[in-house]
Amino acid sequence: MAELKFIALSGTTGATENLYVYEYGNDMVVVDCGVGFPDPEMLGVDLVIPDFDYILKNKNKLRGIVITHGHEDHLGALPFLLKEVQAPIFATRLTAAFIEDKLADYGVKGVRVNVMDPDRAIATKLGVFNINIFRVSHSVPDAVGLAIETPQGVLMHVPDYKFDWSSVDRKPFDVAKAVSLASKGVLGLASDALGSTNPGHTESESVLEERIEQVVSKATGRVYFTTISSNISRMQQAIRAAEKNGRKVAFIGRSMEAKAEIARRLGYLNYGSNIEMNAHAAARAPRNKILYIISGCYGQAGSALHRVAEESHSFLKIEAGDSVVFSADPAPPGSKVKVDYIVDRLLELNVDVHYYDLQEDLHVSGHGSQEDIRFLFGLIKPKYFIPIGGTVRHMRAYSLLAQGLGNPANSIFELMPGDSIIYENGNAKRGKRIPVRDVLVDGLGVGDVGNIVLRDRKILSQEGFVVALIQFDKAANKIAGNPELITRGFVFEKDSKAVLQKGVDRVMEQANRQGINTHRLKEIVVDTLEHFFFDEIGRRPMILPVVIEV
Amino acid sequence: MAELKFIALSGTTGATENLYVYEYGNDMVVVDCGVGFPDPEMLGVDLVIPDFDYILKNKNKLRGIVITHGHEDHLGALPFLLKEVQAPIFATRLTAAFIEDKLADYGVKGVRVNVMDPDRAIATKLGVFNINIFRVSHSVPDAVGLAIETPQGVLMHVPDYKFDWSSVDRKPFDVAKAVSLASKGVLGLASDALGSTNPGHTESESVLEERIEQVVSKATGRVYFTTISSNISRMQQAIRAAEKNGRKVAFIGRSMEAKAEIARRLGYLNYGSNIEMNAHAAARAPRNKILYIISGCYGQAGSALHRVAEESHSFLKIEAGDSVVFSADPAPPGSKVKVDYIVDRLLELNVDVHYYDLQEDLHVSGHGSQEDIRFLFGLIKPKYFIPIGGTVRHMRAYSLLAQGLGNPANSIFELMPGDSIIYENGNAKRGKRIPVRDVLVDGLGVGDVGNIVLRDRKILSQEGFVVALIQFDKAANKIAGNPELITRGFVFEKDSKAVLQKGVDRVMEQANRQGINTHRLKEIVVDTLEHFFFDEIGRRPMILPVVIEV
Repeated sequence: MAELKFIALSGTTGATENLYVYEYGNDMVVVDCGVGFPDPEMLGVDLVIPDFDYILKNKNKLRGIVITHGHEDHLGALPFLLKEVQAPIFATRLTAAFIEDKLADYGVKGVRVNVMDPDRAIATKLGVFNINIFRVSHSVPDAVGLAIETPQGVLMHVPDYKFDWSSVDRKPFDVAKAVSLASKGVLGLASDALGSTNPGHTESESVLEERIEQVVSKATGRVYFTTISSNISRMQQAIRAAEKNGRKVAFIGRSMEAKAEIARRLGYLNYGSNIEMNAHAAARAPRNKILYIISGCYGQAGSALHRVAEESHSFLKIEAGDSVVFSADPAPPGSKVKVDYIVDRLLELNVDVHYYDLQEDLHVSGHGSQEDIRFLFGLIKPKYFIPIGGTVRHMRAYSLLAQGLGNPANSIFELMPGDSIIYENGNAKRGKRIPVRDVLVDGLGVGDVGNIVLRDRKILSQEGFVVALIQFDKAANKIAGNPELITRGFVFEKDSKAVLQKGVDRVMEQANRQGINTHRLKEIVVDTLEHFFFDEIGRRPMILPVVIEV
Repeated sequence: MAELKFIALSGTTGATENLYVYEYGNDMVVVDCGVGFPDPEMLGVDLVIPDFDYILKNKNKLRGIVITHGHEDHLGALPFLLKEVQAPIFATRLTAAFIEDKLADYGVKGVRVNVMDPDRAIATKLGVFNINIFRVSHSVPDAVGLAIETPQGVLMHVPDYKFDWSSVDRKPFDVAKAVSLASKGVLGLASDALGSTNPGHTESESVLEERIEQVVSKATGRVYFTTISSNISRMQQAIRAAEKNGRKVAFIGRSMEAKAEIARRLGYLNYGSNIEMNAHAAARAPRNKILYIISGCYGQAGSALHRVAEESHSFLKIEAGDSVVFSADPAPPGSKVKVDYIVDRLLELNVDVHYYDLQEDLHVSGHGSQEDIRFLFGLIKPKYFIPIGGTVRHMRAYSLLAQGLGNPANSIFELMPGDSIIYENGNAKRGKRIPVRDVLVDGLGVGDVGNIVLRDRKILSQEGFVVALIQFDKAANKIAGNPELITRGFVFEKDSKAVLQKGVDRVMEQANRQGINTHRLKEIVVDTLEHFFFDEIGRRPMILPVVIEV
């Protein structure tokens, strides 16, 4: 019997960018294929995607890709992977529709997603693997966990989940099915660690409905309601609140409109045909009759809400007395500052703003907290534990939770990207680390921005640059005329003529003193200007010497 | 009788950079003179300082500068102001010592700070103003609020404060003195708004001591304790915890060492002479006998703790089993990401880390919460209210608190930087807005980085730049040889030769097609390359055409 391998190619340290591999003999299954968001240090980078090298090297083994739910950090990197390999994709109905929309966005054609039904007891056979799915609650409908039957035993894979017994879609975590799938014993559990530092249970989505209704009922002007665009339940609740208060609903923002349209078409979002209004028509309707569901809950630059707050939206004009409801916490790194900026602009316009810091509890997390995690452990009773979907901090907290329930420390595997586990004869051990790197997407370029480019951007962002343009008379072996300094992002040239001229003088001094040739001249220029500018104004711009032989 | 003016020159929208002006006839007093921290958008900027223009224009009126407590955002801009004006400075003893240390750092010489004693009932007379001070509790000792007697009535100015009846220094908010100073009626109160979105009371510093002791008592290796360097009470508590557990203490990091030295010399920090150990000696002592008090609680790059976590500190080497205690919340914009980075590195080294997300309550805020703010309002009973030291969000929340106590909306003034209030005959109205700008400090340059430089840095940070170097044969009216493209922060040149060559070809094509002269040539180059690179790789680098006539 072959060994069974689990590889965390990505997804364990950045709370996003999920991609896991299950491998046995000649068969390989990929679970999730998500994007990550660039660190603040990754200047100019749009997206981070996992390193597909290992998958590409083993593409003859790839039997299928299973996507567990419709979030970007679980499906957003699919267009990039599918440009390099072909493999059948499996997902539940709503997730499949989100995937097809995403692929269309990227111009990936001819891919049809195979729909799996979590309410039927049929496994999907992918090579030696039998993939069973069961419903979990999360902040997007139709999310599932997996029970993967393998020749070495059952592995369970439960990404983002919580236990929400009164979920808005009335389709909570299917504990009965999960327990039944686990009943023969579970060798390993890879599960969501993101809530592992939060005590207690995560609240149900349904508690929000009354709070949202109350805010809407008190509003006198237009209501702008924002949440993440895939949070269909939250949309449903906002729509009900609008309906109860005699307001029509309009969707604003590309992602919001697209997701709502898909969810409605497939029956995941339900409202009467007279509730929705065209956004332009809504802008002309009485102010107390409208609720906008608008994108931009993380304050993203260029989002609809951002433009509304900056009063630059093409047709929406927010007014004093209107209300904005943030039904989301600023979770992604750097988003708090952006949300704060928008809130401040809105308050200056005398808009009534409901946002995270007011603690009105208009948002609940989609991830289970410590008690939920303990409950899952109790249901599944795995022999081995793998925290996924969090960070190093969450892996450690998850590990301590598992140990607190009496599991030995060596039954928990905190995996860095590329780390693997080998399951054999009912036991698990660490496998080799597969070398992986973050692949950066910038514009249309995938992987062409690396450390050197990022290091240069960092310097440029802090200090700007100076091009030193020098004409060199090779015959006479001397500088012809005066060097010219051209700067950007360094000093305001008009106000800094004196310091720049002094820099030129220093270069001439040094060049004349040291005796020169073209190569040596460049060194002298860089060295002289670096020292001069640091001594003179305490800065270290990038110096780019351009020597032209005349 | 002249009108009394209050100007918020800075400090109401960024939670830092406090500077307020009280003006009556020919007399002016400045209260606080702090730095701000750059927005993430202010690339490469080290500090933000208030606009001193108004003060400089009226410097003949300036009778004194009163500093309320020893935090950077209340005193850090003094060296910049004192380079431009001379005026007596007033502060309590510890604050005065911090100011003198700061001025020495900046090479500002010959300034002696006048020490005020909050325990004496003597007012400081500055022109028509009588400045009375009273103790408040805050996260640095010796903080005070002001009761300013003016010909128009009493104004109270209570920056950063909380009510801490069991404060570590046993010198809590002097309610008796504050009430007595307010007893003849208070016209206006300018007070700390930063806690106005937090429900309830802010906890006492003293509750932390037991928690800190518990963490230290359980530690088996070295303990690294970090907090902000001015938090002398917190240091005192950490030292006591060390003492009780048989550990010696060593201070690490310049700011930590300097503040501790001052506080100890002046009697604000108390411990036996055998407790402190030289940092180098401590590194050689048994691991369970040492507690380091180390700087870097916000994860600042280059701080001692940052270097320890990156294993690049010159003599400290952290090991598995050591403990790090963050006794601070990552408050400044962008600091959470930096703290998370350090925590992750430390956890990877198997260090036991106590940090904000674990909710162990190892930090309390220095700012009063909603109930504390209501209590202050009740004590002072001012006619007019001015929220300071917060943001637009906090001003609004503060305003709603005041209104909730029955004060009319027009008794509260939310002031943007430069906004002023005129007090006359017992009433207040808005004055003119004085135009102010943020003054950016970058290296040794003050105010020489403005919007154009920042805009260029933004582009460079996201996209890098391309210098297009073109030799132009003016006589023949054509490009001589091939243009050269030099890039930084754009693409990795070695891997992108093809696309760059294609860019050069496009330039030649366009230049030949359109017919040229030097000026026109630059336009053609920029236009051609901008379009080409955007179409080809979806990016918009800064294009800098350099045309040399040969």
